[in-house]
Amino acid sequence: MNVFVIGIGLIGGSFAKDIKRLRPNAKIYGIDTNASHLDEALELNIIDYKSSYSELSEADMVIVSIPVDVLLTEIPKILDAVNDNCVVFDGGSTKSLICKTLEDHPKRRNYLASHPIAGTEFSGPSAALENLYNGKTNIICEVEKTAFKLQEKALELFQEMGMRIRYMNPEAHDKHIAYVSHLSHISSFMLGKTVIEKEKNERDIFDMAGSGFESTVRLAKSSPAMWTPIFEQNKTNVVETLEEYISNLEAFKELLLKDDFKGIYNEMNDTNKIKEILNGIPLNKKIE
Amino acid sequence: MNVFVIGIGLIGGSFAKDIKRLRPNAKIYGIDTNASHLDEALELNIIDYKSSYSELSEADMVIVSIPVDVLLTEIPKILDAVNDNCVVFDGGSTKSLICKTLEDHPKRRNYLASHPIAGTEFSGPSAALENLYNGKTNIICEVEKTAFKLQEKALELFQEMGMRIRYMNPEAHDKHIAYVSHLSHISSFMLGKTVIEKEKNERDIFDMAGSGFESTVRLAKSSPAMWTPIFEQNKTNVVETLEEYISNLEAFKELLLKDDFKGIYNEMNDTNKIKEILNGIPLNKKIE
Repeated sequence: MNVFVIGIGLIGGSFAKDIKRLRPNAKIYGIDTNASHLDEALELNIIDYKSSYSELSEADMVIVSIPVDVLLTEIPKILDAVNDNCVVFDGGSTKSLICKTLEDHPKRRNYLASHPIAGTEFSGPSAALENLYNGKTNIICEVEKTAFKLQEKALELFQEMGMRIRYMNPEAHDKHIAYVSHLSHISSFMLGKTVIEKEKNERDIFDMAGSGFESTVRLAKSSPAMWTPIFEQNKTNVVETLEEYISNLEAFKELLLKDDFKGIYNEMNDTNKIKEILNGIPLNKKIE
Repeated sequence: MNVFVIGIGLIGGSFAKDIKRLRPNAKIYGIDTNASHLDEALELNIIDYKSSYSELSEADMVIVSIPVDVLLTEIPKILDAVNDNCVVFDGGSTKSLICKTLEDHPKRRNYLASHPIAGTEFSGPSAALENLYNGKTNIICEVEKTAFKLQEKALELFQEMGMRIRYMNPEAHDKHIAYVSHLSHISSFMLGKTVIEKEKNERDIFDMAGSGFESTVRLAKSSPAMWTPIFEQNKTNVVETLEEYISNLEAFKELLLKDDFKGIYNEMNDTNKIKEILNGIPLNKKIE
């Protein structure tokens, strides 16, 4: 099997690592605009060969893990280049615009819209992790638009990688993901900004910050090149979540200003049920 | 050595566990208004005896790990009851009000104002962890007001536990800790609230949330009984941090609404330097 990984960083590289283990005969071809990433991926044995679009006709599977703005221009070209038995899937964090863009593409049936909910705040080939996807959710959109045999080829791999599959339409995906992922990133970036601005003398942060702070600002290490186009494509949903978040923060501030500490207690107590919700998140759980 | 732990939960229980290892001859006495916590602590071998204030005169060291509102009424009584060679220290997350409250106490010299920056989102004796404090910072306020020999007794223990000691005045402590701890908790609670409100159907959160969401809402599991009085005592600083945070979120939203994605990119890129700052946080680093 010839697998092409376009964008060989955390997401694509982690796919490559699992495929090497699960499909020992697979040959992994890497394509990346960043030449040093490509060298690094070869050196780390994540890919077997450097490649280019001109070889895409040989591909049995193409994994596209590039920023969501570039996806829009690249996936049509990739589809043009692949053969009829090749499945092309992506890992983008927005799904509406790419599905809309490919709606009338003659090779729409070769594309599977997917979003594996996995990652870390790091990027590049050295951030790739074996088993990153084990126990994680992979959201598939418009599955019915992909040729059945090609669905099967991709889903078999996802299942062997230990992923839980969920089907959703692209609009629902983008709306919910704004709440459980995109908003977290903004909250974290702006928290980091607030503290950095205030604490010009970094020694104070350095000494006083604990694991709680670290946890809430971890996502502020994320890549701006990856996240800017996500916010752009999912702007409407993201603005809505931001408005609700800001209004909850304002309400909390008002309770403080009114010395309504019973109200403050209740706000926190009501939100404590996040414990049970988080217990249900399959973060690192292996599938039986 | 007789060590009394008043409030035998995560913080007090973790002290007890380290003391048992480092001072094999120490006897640990537990005092708690929650009778089942006291039973649990005895069962888990965190304390050797249940005790009460009437035995406090036998104490060589008293660790007070109770909510910061209760600290204000209890520490004066504890100081009244202890002998002259006993050191009393606390783990409260606010320092101005307790220092002010004890200013004229005849036994002020027996008290050491401390705030070990350590913890988890869990509480109760079963949450106590050996080595929780190893490599963490302990902030000491108004050290000059504590009798030298008593400072020495406490600091020797802190150092053997692997803590880094920092000295700070109570007002500076409360101001900085609002940024690097208290604000993180509010940001996390309100993020949890926003998502819970929206996602009435919890199945959607359950399936789509990843480790990023988990990380940013982890602190929303924290105890409201502990956190309400912290926000009350540090209200002025907390409101200030909240206002700055809200204004940064508003500015981010405005950039989105204006389609200023270059600006969005820059906001995130500028905040990426949190990486270097977080690398400096002694979260789990052992002291050489």
